[in-house]
Amino acid sequence: MLLDTKLPVAYILTRMWPDIIRVLVISLSFQLLKYFLGDYLPEIPLQLPTILGSLISLLLAFNLNQSYDRWWEARKLWGAIVNDSRMLVLQILHFVPNDLLRSPTLGSPLQAFAYRQIAWCYSLGQSLRGQDGLAGLDKFLPEQDLAYLRKHSNKPVGILALHTAHTKELYQQDVINPFQQVQIDSTIVRYTEAMGGAERIKNTVFPSSYRQLIHVLIYVFLITLSLSLVETIGLWEIPVLMTIAVAFLLLDRTARYLQDPFSDTPTDTPMTAVARTIEINLRQLLEEDKENIPRRWYRGRII
Amino acid sequence: MLLDTKLPVAYILTRMWPDIIRVLVISLSFQLLKYFLGDYLPEIPLQLPTILGSLISLLLAFNLNQSYDRWWEARKLWGAIVNDSRMLVLQILHFVPNDLLRSPTLGSPLQAFAYRQIAWCYSLGQSLRGQDGLAGLDKFLPEQDLAYLRKHSNKPVGILALHTAHTKELYQQDVINPFQQVQIDSTIVRYTEAMGGAERIKNTVFPSSYRQLIHVLIYVFLITLSLSLVETIGLWEIPVLMTIAVAFLLLDRTARYLQDPFSDTPTDTPMTAVARTIEINLRQLLEEDKENIPRRWYRGRII
Amino acid sequence: MLLDTKLPVAYILTRMWPDIIRVLVISLSFQLLKYFLGDYLPEIPLQLPTILGSLISLLLAFNLNQSYDRWWEARKLWGAIVNDSRMLVLQILHFVPNDLLRSPTLGSPLQAFAYRQIAWCYSLGQSLRGQDGLAGLDKFLPEQDLAYLRKHSNKPVGILALHTAHTKELYQQDVINPFQQVQIDSTIVRYTEAMGGAERIKNTVFPSSYRQLIHVLIYVFLITLSLSLVETIGLWEIPVLMTIAVAFLLLDRTARYLQDPFSDTPTDTPMTAVARTIEINLRQLLEEDKENIPRRWYRGRII
Amino acid sequence: MLLDTKLPVAYILTRMWPDIIRVLVISLSFQLLKYFLGDYLPEIPLQLPTILGSLISLLLAFNLNQSYDRWWEARKLWGAIVNDSRMLVLQILHFVPNDLLRSPTLGSPLQAFAYRQIAWCYSLGQSLRGQDGLAGLDKFLPEQDLAYLRKHSNKPVGILALHTAHTKELYQQDVINPFQQVQIDSTIVRYTEAMGGAERIKNTVFPSSYRQLIHVLIYVFLITLSLSLVETIGLWEIPVLMTIAVAFLLLDRTARYLQDPFSDTPTDTPMTAVARTIEINLRQLLEEDKENIPRRWYRGRII
Amino acid sequence: MLLDTKLPVAYILTRMWPDIIRVLVISLSFQLLKYFLGDYLPEIPLQLPTILGSLISLLLAFNLNQSYDRWWEARKLWGAIVNDSRMLVLQILHFVPNDLLRSPTLGSPLQAFAYRQIAWCYSLGQSLRGQDGLAGLDKFLPEQDLAYLRKHSNKPVGILALHTAHTKELYQQDVINPFQQVQIDSTIVRYTEAMGGAERIKNTVFPSSYRQLIHVLIYVFLITLSLSLVETIGLWEIPVLMTIAVAFLLLDRTARYLQDPFSDTPTDTPMTAVARTIEINLRQLLEEDKENIPRRWYRGRII
Repeated sequence: MLLDTKLPVAYILTRMWPDIIRVLVISLSFQLLKYFLGDYLPEIPLQLPTILGSLISLLLAFNLNQSYDRWWEARKLWGAIVNDSRMLVLQILHFVPNDLLRSPTLGSPLQAFAYRQIAWCYSLGQSLRGQDGLAGLDKFLPEQDLAYLRKHSNKPVGILALHTAHTKELYQQDVINPFQQVQIDSTIVRYTEAMGGAERIKNTVFPSSYRQLIHVLIYVFLITLSLSLVETIGLWEIPVLMTIAVAFLLLDRTARYLQDPFSDTPTDTPMTAVARTIEINLRQLLEEDKENIPRRWYRGRII
Repeated sequence: MLLDTKLPVAYILTRMWPDIIRVLVISLSFQLLKYFLGDYLPEIPLQLPTILGSLISLLLAFNLNQSYDRWWEARKLWGAIVNDSRMLVLQILHFVPNDLLRSPTLGSPLQAFAYRQIAWCYSLGQSLRGQDGLAGLDKFLPEQDLAYLRKHSNKPVGILALHTAHTKELYQQDVINPFQQVQIDSTIVRYTEAMGGAERIKNTVFPSSYRQLIHVLIYVFLITLSLSLVETIGLWEIPVLMTIAVAFLLLDRTARYLQDPFSDTPTDTPMTAVARTIEINLRQLLEEDKENIPRRWYRGRII
Repeated sequence: MLLDTKLPVAYILTRMWPDIIRVLVISLSFQLLKYFLGDYLPEIPLQLPTILGSLISLLLAFNLNQSYDRWWEARKLWGAIVNDSRMLVLQILHFVPNDLLRSPTLGSPLQAFAYRQIAWCYSLGQSLRGQDGLAGLDKFLPEQDLAYLRKHSNKPVGILALHTAHTKELYQQDVINPFQQVQIDSTIVRYTEAMGGAERIKNTVFPSSYRQLIHVLIYVFLITLSLSLVETIGLWEIPVLMTIAVAFLLLDRTARYLQDPFSDTPTDTPMTAVARTIEINLRQLLEEDKENIPRRWYRGRII
Repeated sequence: MLLDTKLPVAYILTRMWPDIIRVLVISLSFQLLKYFLGDYLPEIPLQLPTILGSLISLLLAFNLNQSYDRWWEARKLWGAIVNDSRMLVLQILHFVPNDLLRSPTLGSPLQAFAYRQIAWCYSLGQSLRGQDGLAGLDKFLPEQDLAYLRKHSNKPVGILALHTAHTKELYQQDVINPFQQVQIDSTIVRYTEAMGGAERIKNTVFPSSYRQLIHVLIYVFLITLSLSLVETIGLWEIPVLMTIAVAFLLLDRTARYLQDPFSDTPTDTPMTAVARTIEINLRQLLEEDKENIPRRWYRGRII
Repeated sequence: MLLDTKLPVAYILTRMWPDIIRVLVISLSFQLLKYFLGDYLPEIPLQLPTILGSLISLLLAFNLNQSYDRWWEARKLWGAIVNDSRMLVLQILHFVPNDLLRSPTLGSPLQAFAYRQIAWCYSLGQSLRGQDGLAGLDKFLPEQDLAYLRKHSNKPVGILALHTAHTKELYQQDVINPFQQVQIDSTIVRYTEAMGGAERIKNTVFPSSYRQLIHVLIYVFLITLSLSLVETIGLWEIPVLMTIAVAFLLLDRTARYLQDPFSDTPTDTPMTAVARTIEINLRQLLEEDKENIPRRWYRGRII
C-alpha cells in the first residue's frame, strides 16, 4: 500500500498556462513601457519587491503548511477508518459465540458485518468524490439493504443504520450481552466521527478570500519586481521574472492541490486503494478462499 | 453542502475606506512636507522599513495562522455536532425496541429525540449569533417544552435538559437498560463539549491588545516607508505606498474575519446550512415522506 | 459573556517606563559618542542590524505564538469547566429519581451538587489567583463542609472529595446504580484534569532563560541599530530608534501578559465572570426564583 | 534505552555526491560563461538571490518542521505500543484469578498473552520494514498459531485475532467477567490504533510534488546566486557557492530522512530495540528466571 | 508550587567557553589573514551572510519552538500524573465502603494506595533521572513490596503491578464491584500512558543530525560574516562578531536545555517538587496529622 501522490508535471503545467501567459504579458509590457516611456518610469528600488517578496514567501509557507495539515488530517481519518474496520470484525469474532458466527438464522453475522463494512468504505469514498454512493455495492449487500439505502441521500449513514439494526437484533436474541452491544456501539461512534471529519474537509472549502488574496499578492509582487528589473538588467528581466513567477505560482498551486484531498483529481487521497486494502484484510479475517480475495494491485501499482 | 466563505470584495472595501483614506493622507502629507521642508527631512534608508516590514509580515502571517486555527476549530466543532446528531438518532434506533420506537405513551421516542435534536442545532446557531434561540422551533417542539425553555437564558442547555429527562423516563420504564442509558449520556456529554467549545470561541475575543498592536505597527511601517520613498521615487510614492498599504491592511482584515467565525456577517460559519443538512439526514433516518424533507438548497446554493 | 482582554494602554505604558528610558539613554549616549569621538566610531553597515532584526522578529513572533497558545489553552480549560459543570447537574437530574432529587434525608442531592459545583468554580478561580480559596463560599456550602475544607491546603481538591463522598452515599443507599456511579466518577475525573491543567499553566512559569534571552537580544539589536543610524541620519536617530524600540518592546510585553493567564492583572482569564455564568446556568437548571439568580453583569459589563 | 538517531556523516555524504557534483558543474560553467561571454551576461543584483533565498529558507524550515512532526508521531506511536503492551499483561494479572493464571487447560493465559504480545511487537516492526513478519516468532508462538498466521498477508492483524480468540475463550469459561472482557477489548482497540497509525506513516509518502518542488527551487536559487557571485567575487564564487549549496542540500536531506521513520536505514525508528525492551519488561512481570531475560544490549549499545 | 526554570547565567557560560574561544580564534585569524594577505581575500558582499543569517534564524526559531514543545509536553505529562494521583485516592475513597477503608485485614486500602502512589511518583522521577528507583521508598512501602520491586529493572512498572494486585484482591473479596474495578483499571491505564510518555521523551534524543547541522551552520554563517566585516569595519569586527556569535550560540544552547527536560541538570522538570506536592495533597486527603505532612518548601523555595 504505497500511497504516493505524484503530481504529474504535465498535469500541473496544463493548468498553469493562464498564469504563465499573464506573467509573460506583464514582463513584455514593462519592456515596451520602458522602451517608449523610459523617462517617465520610476526607478523602483529593489528593496521594495524584497519587502513584498518576504511577505509573500511567509504567506505561501504558512499556506503550504495549513494545506499540508488538511491533507494529513484527511489521511489520518482514512487511517482511522482502516483501524476501526478491522476492529469491528475482530469484535464480532470476539463477542459472537463460535457456533453462531456463521448461523444463517442470525444473518450469518461475521460475513454480513464484514461485507457491510467493506461496502461502507467503498460507499464513503465514492460519496466524497461526488460519485454514486451505491455503485458496485451489490457484491457486498443483499438487494433488500440496497433498496433501503436508495431512500437515503447520505448512503454511508444509511449503511451505519444497517450495522446498528443488525447489532440490535443480535442483542435482542441474546447473542451478545449489553456490555458487548455498547462496545460495538462505541466502534460505530468512531465511524461517524471519521466520516464526519472527512465530510467536513470535503465540504469546508479553504477560506477563498484568503486563497485569492495570496494569488493577487503574488501578482503585485511580480509587477513591482518587473518594474525594478527592467531598469536594472534590461531584457534579461523576461527569463528572470518568468523563473521567479513559476516558482511562486507552483507553490501556490501545490498548496491548492493539498487543500482538497477528496476532489477527484489524480492527486487526491487514494480512497479506492485504501478500501481495497480493507477488503483484503477483512476477507482474510473471514478465512475466505484465496480466489475470492482481490489482488494487491491497483492502477498498475502494488498496494 | 459546499460551504464556501466568499468574502465579497465590495463588502470588504466598504469597511476599508477609513484605512485607505488614512494612508492617502499620510502619503500626501509627506509629499507636502518634502516640498516645503525638503531640506530638513532625514533620508531614511530603505533598510529601516525593510526591518519593520519583515517584522510585520511575520506578525501578520502568524496572526493569519492563529485566526485560521480558530476558524478551523469552529468548523470542527460544528462537524462534531453533525456526527453526534446522527449518532443520537442511530442510538435511539439501536437501543429502543422496534415496537416502542413510535409508541405515543412513551412520547414516540424516535421522533421526539430527532426533532428535539434538530431544534437544538437551530437554537445553538441562533444563540451563537445573538438571535432569539427559540425562533422557529415550534415546528419541532411541543408547546409545553417551549414554555420550559422560555425560563432558561441559555436555550440549548435547556434543550439538553429535555433530552436528559426523556432518557431518564425511558430508563425508568425499562425501555433501555442501564448500559444504554449511560451510553446515551455519553453522547449528551459530547454535545455539551461541542456547545461549550463554540461558546468559548464566540465569547473569547481574540486578545485585543495583540490585534491593535499589529494594526498600529502597520501604520508605523507605512510611515517609515513613505518617508523613504518620498526621497527616492518622488510622486510615484503615492501609488506604490497605496498598493503596499492595501496588501498589508487586507491581510490584517482577513485575519479578523476568520477570528470571529460566529459573528453575523456574510462570512461566518454557515450554521443554518449545517443545521438544515442535519434536519435532512435525521428526517431520512426517520423514513419520513419526501415532501416533509427540506430541499438541499440554501441562500441560492445547493448544500 | 463577552470576555475581552483589553490591555489598557495606560497600564502598559506605566510598566514600560524603565525600558523606554533605557533606550533613550542608549540613543543619546551614541549621539554624544559621535560628537566627541566621531572619528573612532565604526560605520556599522545597516545590514548588520537587519540580520539581528530578522532574528529578533522571528523569536518574537514565535514567542507571541507560544504565549497565545498558553492563553488559549487556559481559556479552553475554563471552557471545559463550564461544560462539565453543566453536565454534572444534568447527570444528577438524569440519574436520581425525581422524588428523591430534593429529598432532605439524602442531603437534597440536586441543590447540594449544584451549589457545591458553583463553590468549586469560585474556589478554583480564587486559588489560582493566590487568593483565599474559601472566601464567599458560605453562600453555597454548609458550615460542616467549610470546616472540613479548612484542613486542606488545596481547597478545590477538598471540594471534589465532598462530591465524591456524596456520590458514594447515593450509591450506598441505592439511589443510583453502579453504572451511574461510574459515569459521575468520570465527570469528576474530567474536573481533576481541567483543574490540574489550570494549575500547571499557573505554576509552570514560561522558561525564564528563554524570556530573558529575547529581552537581551532586543537590546543588542537596538544598540547595533543605533550605531548604524547615528552615522546615517544624525539627530533623527533618536525618534526613529525610539519608535522601533517601542514596537519591539511592546510585542515582548504583550507576549508576557499572554503567558500568565492566571495572574491577578487587569488582563487575566476572567474566571470570576465565568464562574458567575456557571452560577446563573446552574440556578436556572434548578428552576430557582428569578430573584435568586445573579444578574448577567460584571465589572460594568454584561456577561 | 537511549535511542539516538545518529546519522553517520559518511552515510549522508555517500548519498549526496550526485547533488554536490551537479552544483560543482553549475558553478564551473558560469565561470566559463563569464570568461568567454562576459559581456553578454547580465549583472544579476544580489537582491534577487536574497528574495529566493528567504523563500527557500522558509520552505526548508517548515519542511523540516513537518518532517520532525512525522518522526515524532512515529515515536509516539511506538511509545504507545510500549505502554499498552505493559498494560495488557497487567490486565491479565489483574483480571484472571491467581490459580488460573498459569493453568495449562486455559492455555496458561499469563504467559500466552505476554509471549504473543512480544511476538506482535517484533512482527509489527518487521512488517513495517518490509521484512518477513513471522521471522523469529517461533520462540514465542506455538506451531498451530504460526500456521494460522501464514494465511494472513498482514501478520500483526492476525496476531490480534489470536489475542481476541483467547480472550473470548477466557470469557466463555467464566474466567473473566463481561466488564473485564470489554476492558481488554479496549486495550486491543488501542493496539489497532497504534498499528494503523504506524502503517499510515509508513505508507503515506510525503507529498512528492511538494518534496520535488523544494529540491528544484534550491537549484533555481543556486543558479541565480552563482550568476550574481561570478560578477562580484570572481573565482571565489566556487567555494562560496559550494558551502551554501551543501548547507541547503543537507537540510533538505535531513528532512527526507526524518520523513520516513520506518524505512530500513541506519536512521529509522529503533523498533527492534523497543521490542526488546518490551520483551525484558514483560518477562520480568512474568517473574521469569534471569537467564531467560535478554540483556539490555543492542547493536553495541545499552538500551 | 512555583516551578521556574532559572538557567543560571554562570552555569551556561561555563559550558559555552569552548564555543566562545572558537569564535574568537575565527575572528582573530581573519584579521591576521587580512593583514598579511589582504589583497588575495575576496570582498564577500554582506548580502551573503544575510542570506545565511535568515536561514539560521529560521532554523533556530523553529528549533526553539520544537524544543519548547518537548519541554511543555514533559510538563503536561507530570501535570497528568498529579491529577491522576489525586484521582486514584478519590476513587478509593469513593468506592471502598467507609468501614473498610482502613481495615487492616484488607491491607488498609486507603493508606496503602495513597502511600504506594506517592512512592510511584518519587520512583518515576528518580528512574527518569537515572538514579536508583527505590531510594527513600522504605517510608512508603512495606519490606515485602520492596523485595518484589528489587527484581524489576523498571521499578515504576513494578509498583503499578502492586496497585493492580491490590485492586484484584479488593475485587475478589467483594469490596469493590466489577464496574469499580474497571474504573480503577482505567486510572492505572492513564498512569502507564503518562509514564510511557515521560520515558519516550527521556529516551528519544532529539535527532542529533538535525542538532549538529544547526550548530555547524552557525559556524558557516559566522565565518562568512567575519570575512565580510573584516573588509568593512576592520578591527571593530572582533567585538561585533563576538556579540552576534554569542546571541546565536545562546539560542542554540537554550534550545538544547529545553530538549532534555529529564536530564539531571539545574534546569530540568522539577519532578521532586511535584512529587512532594502530591505527597502533601494525598496526606491531606488521608486527613493525617499536620506533623506528618512535609512542609511546602523545597530547595529554598516555597512550592
